[in-house]
Formats: sequence, C-alpha cells, structure tokens
Amino acid sequence: MKIKFKVWLDQNGKAFGNGPLELLKKVEKTGSLRKAAGQMHMSYSKAWHLIQILEGRLGFSLLDKKIGGASGGGSVLTPESKDLMAHYEKFQKEVKESLNRIFKKHFGSSFIISLPHKRGHRRTSQK
Amino acid sequence: MKIKFKVWLDQNGKAFGNGPLELLKKVEKTGSLRKAAGQMHMSYSKAWHLIQILEGRLGFSLLDKKIGGASGGGSVLTPESKDLMAHYEKFQKEVKESLNRIFKKHFGSSFIISLPHKRGHRRTSQK
Repeated sequence: MKIKFKVWLDQNGKAFGNGPLELLKKVEKTGSLRKAAGQMHMSYSKAWHLIQILEGRLGFSLLDKKIGGASGGGSVLTPESKDLMAHYEKFQKEVKESLNRIFKKHFGSSFIISLPHKRGHRRTSQK
Repeated sequence: MKIKFKVWLDQNGKAFGNGPLELLKKVEKTGSLRKAAGQMHMSYSKAWHLIQILEGRLGFSLLDKKIGGASGGGSVLTPESKDLMAHYEKFQKEVKESLNRIFKKHFGSSFIISLPHKRGHRRTSQK
C-alpha cells in the first residue's frame, strides 16, 4: 500500500503544478516552447494555450518570446517564472516528505498489514 | 491563491480516498449501498463495482450484505471498514493541516502577492 497525491496552486482553476513545472523546465533547457511541448507529447497549440491560462490565473507572464535571430526566435523564462519554479520545487519536496511521514504514522507497519485478508462477501442473516 | 490537493491510498490503482470515504459514511447512515449511491448521484451498479474494486485492492471486505428482514436486506460496514475510515479521517485531517502550513511557508504573504501583475507578452528582440 502506498500513498499517492496531486497538489496544485489554484486561482479560479489550476494555476500551477507538476505538469507546468515540467513544461517550463523543458523550455528552459531547449529555449523553445515548441520543443518543450514535443518532448511532453503535447501539441504546440495546447502548450501555448496552457501557458496563456496559467499566466491569466497567476497574474504574471511565464515566458518571454524572443523574435528573430538565427534560430527564428524562441522562448525564455521570465524572472517571475524562475522564482515560481524555485518556490514550487521546494514546496513540492516538503509536501512529499510530509505526506510520506503522515502516511507512515497512520497506515505504516501495523495497520494495513494487520488487517485480515478478504474473505469474500460475508453474509449475515437478518431476522 | 490557494493550495488544492488530492490524496489517496494506492495498491495497483486507487484503493481508498475521499470518494469511497463519503460513500461508506452514507452506507453507515442509511444502511443501504443503493441509498448511499443515490445520495452521491451515482448508479447502484457503479457504486457496487467500485466497492468490489476497492475490496480487491485493499485485501479485505468493506461491506457486509444483510439478507432478508422486513427491509429486504441492506449493507453494513465491516469492522475493518470502520477501522480504515477512522484511520483515513485522521490521516486526511493531518494532511490538510500540513499542506496548508507548507503552502503558507513557501507561498504565503510575501511570494505570490509581491509578484508584478501580468504585463502582456513582453517581447525582446534577439539579434
């Protein structure tokens, strides 16, 4: 038995979470939203739309679009985007550690293992 | 900005979480899986199927089916089911408190609020 979780920042809908973090990391690495989207098997238009929605909810820009140049432009992270990612990664790490600790406290060792194995449907007659 | 989360027990798939907890609480109250499902706008067959899957993953029975009687039978929680619910509720309460605390630590007061408001797409030319 394991614990699983999803956690995200919300502002009238999902504003940031693991998916966006991964996408932005790939933008940082590749310098391109198109390449980042491709690496996540996401269409460019879907990734672009996602960024627009997140920016609207967060209230600041995540990407700066570079125009022109030999590579035909690309995207770089805004300072605010980098700041958010750094905060979110620390936050996420602490959440993970905390949830594992709480899970062990309530379900570790003694609990789930000590429960009897399923007996099939037990039927008790009611008069 | 708020934090939102989903957390669940996993054993080759979802084995327990908020939805099942709510369903079992309603079974406890109404004495009937059919009534409990109805209150959650879920079909009886879907609720029954869910219980089967959870029982398989957990390795023990959640419900005892009562046969006959004036009411034509119904369902009661097994002792293991009640035990799981009690553990899960304490676990869930602690998770919520912990996540709120971690959220405030990383995103509270200073962070999100201090970020500048979105400026529209900033464009920097690249030569």
